[in-house]
Amino acid sequence: MARTQRVTLKEIAARTGVSMTTISKVLNGAADVSSATRELVEGHLRESGYRRRNSRQRREYVEVVLHELEGEWALAIIEGVRETAAQAGLVVSLSVSGDRHAPGADWFDAVVRRRPIGIILLFAGIAAEGRAKLTSRSIPFVLIDPAGDPDPGIPSVGSANWAGGLDATRHLIDLGHRRIAAIAGPEDVMSSLARVDGYRSALTAAGLPVESELTRFGDVDRESGERFAHALLSLTDPPTAIFAGSDVQALGVLHAAAARAVDVPGQLSVVGFDDLALAELANPRLTTIHQPLREMAEHATRLLLGPVEDRQLGVTRVELATRLVVRDSTAPPARPPRSGW
Amino acid sequence: MARTQRVTLKEIAARTGVSMTTISKVLNGAADVSSATRELVEGHLRESGYRRRNSRQRREYVEVVLHELEGEWALAIIEGVRETAAQAGLVVSLSVSGDRHAPGADWFDAVVRRRPIGIILLFAGIAAEGRAKLTSRSIPFVLIDPAGDPDPGIPSVGSANWAGGLDATRHLIDLGHRRIAAIAGPEDVMSSLARVDGYRSALTAAGLPVESELTRFGDVDRESGERFAHALLSLTDPPTAIFAGSDVQALGVLHAAAARAVDVPGQLSVVGFDDLALAELANPRLTTIHQPLREMAEHATRLLLGPVEDRQLGVTRVELATRLVVRDSTAPPARPPRSGW
Repeated sequence: MARTQRVTLKEIAARTGVSMTTISKVLNGAADVSSATRELVEGHLRESGYRRRNSRQRREYVEVVLHELEGEWALAIIEGVRETAAQAGLVVSLSVSGDRHAPGADWFDAVVRRRPIGIILLFAGIAAEGRAKLTSRSIPFVLIDPAGDPDPGIPSVGSANWAGGLDATRHLIDLGHRRIAAIAGPEDVMSSLARVDGYRSALTAAGLPVESELTRFGDVDRESGERFAHALLSLTDPPTAIFAGSDVQALGVLHAAAARAVDVPGQLSVVGFDDLALAELANPRLTTIHQPLREMAEHATRLLLGPVEDRQLGVTRVELATRLVVRDSTAPPARPPRSGW
Repeated sequence: MARTQRVTLKEIAARTGVSMTTISKVLNGAADVSSATRELVEGHLRESGYRRRNSRQRREYVEVVLHELEGEWALAIIEGVRETAAQAGLVVSLSVSGDRHAPGADWFDAVVRRRPIGIILLFAGIAAEGRAKLTSRSIPFVLIDPAGDPDPGIPSVGSANWAGGLDATRHLIDLGHRRIAAIAGPEDVMSSLARVDGYRSALTAAGLPVESELTRFGDVDRESGERFAHALLSLTDPPTAIFAGSDVQALGVLHAAAARAVDVPGQLSVVGFDDLALAELANPRLTTIHQPLREMAEHATRLLLGPVEDRQLGVTRVELATRLVVRDSTAPPARPPRSGW
């Protein structure tokens, strides 16, 4: 997105020997162009750094691309984009790529035809070729990336996962806990690492030891939370508090505790992460770290609809703050437990 | 939607004395037409039963109108529409009307400009004037109406609430329960009435008395479920089972039971309604009635994209079946409890 518009379509026509009409068809994603011609034109558009001027055509849509439409996450993101777009008189449209990593080639062809005002991607990256396609059509894009591992070429908005892990653990330390376990998401996801690093830093800052048997990485589903909680509560010296990497994992911890007749928060404190609606509905109501999903979506949309310079600064990465929400699943520890609840 | 296209724009121009260009602007929702002229033209369009021919313009969007973007409901509906639309090469766009009853005038003006291929409405009705506006532009619409109270002039898809109430209650009777309470949504919502009627019919069919103190109508939130459960469990002769009108109310019942140290399902069986994700995550996992939300959305979208005749048949109302999902919150009753747990 660095070069500004210098080349005209006339010059591209002269260089490629392709007619203006056909080049215009390629730009608009029309189907009746051979793939050889299309590739030739796309190549020249890319190399020349061509950028379409703002078209006079009405463009009313901001497109949101998700890899699946599931869970409160998707909804919070959509609602944040929708509301910010609505303030600008725009409507949200939805694409589901079915792939966590990047939208497919079909999607690029179709989105060039639709020409939304801009694109918000959740999680997914965009390969260089796709970026060039969108840039040549003046369709801007911003990535919402709660996982904390954005493609370096794309402006993105995330949340402060490390600080969230730190706050959750500090809360438990402040309550008097000294033996605190962490259950995290997959070890190859940056947000899991960042949260666990925040947890470790809080322990170290309080002069507490970091014990490897007290950290478990795995899936973010309820079953993993349940399994890890059983393992942790079976230790010779079990933890008095568990910081879970997601609310859903924390629910699994609550189930395991209930199955072992371990009272939460009397005998075990539990902190989640995300602050989904289920955190408020859980029994006991879950203390958790609020992820500013909706705010991330609002910020990403403002970035998308704002001046192009705001999206470029080197490339833009914004992290919004999480915050601790104290409910009923945390309390000061009971007297040191006997081994193996 | 009964009359077919007979009148031409030329005839409307002749009758109104308004130029073809201006009439065309009104049809396309352009802003630069006086409101007096606009009303004059709209009136003639409506009275004459004019219907725009399918435009050559690309139309790629199916618009979903919700009164709010919240909860799994919204997501299940959006996903059902999205997937069916995607199979037809279409993309979903979202409007939020902010009003449960009907989209506002602003929305009609904007949607006429956007010209989606069709519109799916959740809950909301459309007044006759709005219907005429959409019909004259050949923009079809279908209502998804889980509440069971559709506007009679609009094709709609709902679910079989009465049968759901019947199935939930039969399940409890089959387990051996004889004193079964029902907690329902508001008394002026058709789906609440239908579910409670299903509950009463199941009792009557089994030769059990219908006792008014065992039925409570109210809000569908957790707090209402909790409050009603406390009231029911405080009766001299408390119920051994509660059929709740929603999963969220059922969660409230679980909280009340936990607070009174009443074991679920040992001393109290609980059935929910909806089968949201939280039903599977609750502790104990909730037996509930599955609402086919996604299937309703798929069906509505097929109806929208199919031949116009399918939407007219007098006017179409489709109800999809619910089904009982047995999990861990129901069991045979314990011996008759002493009064007042």
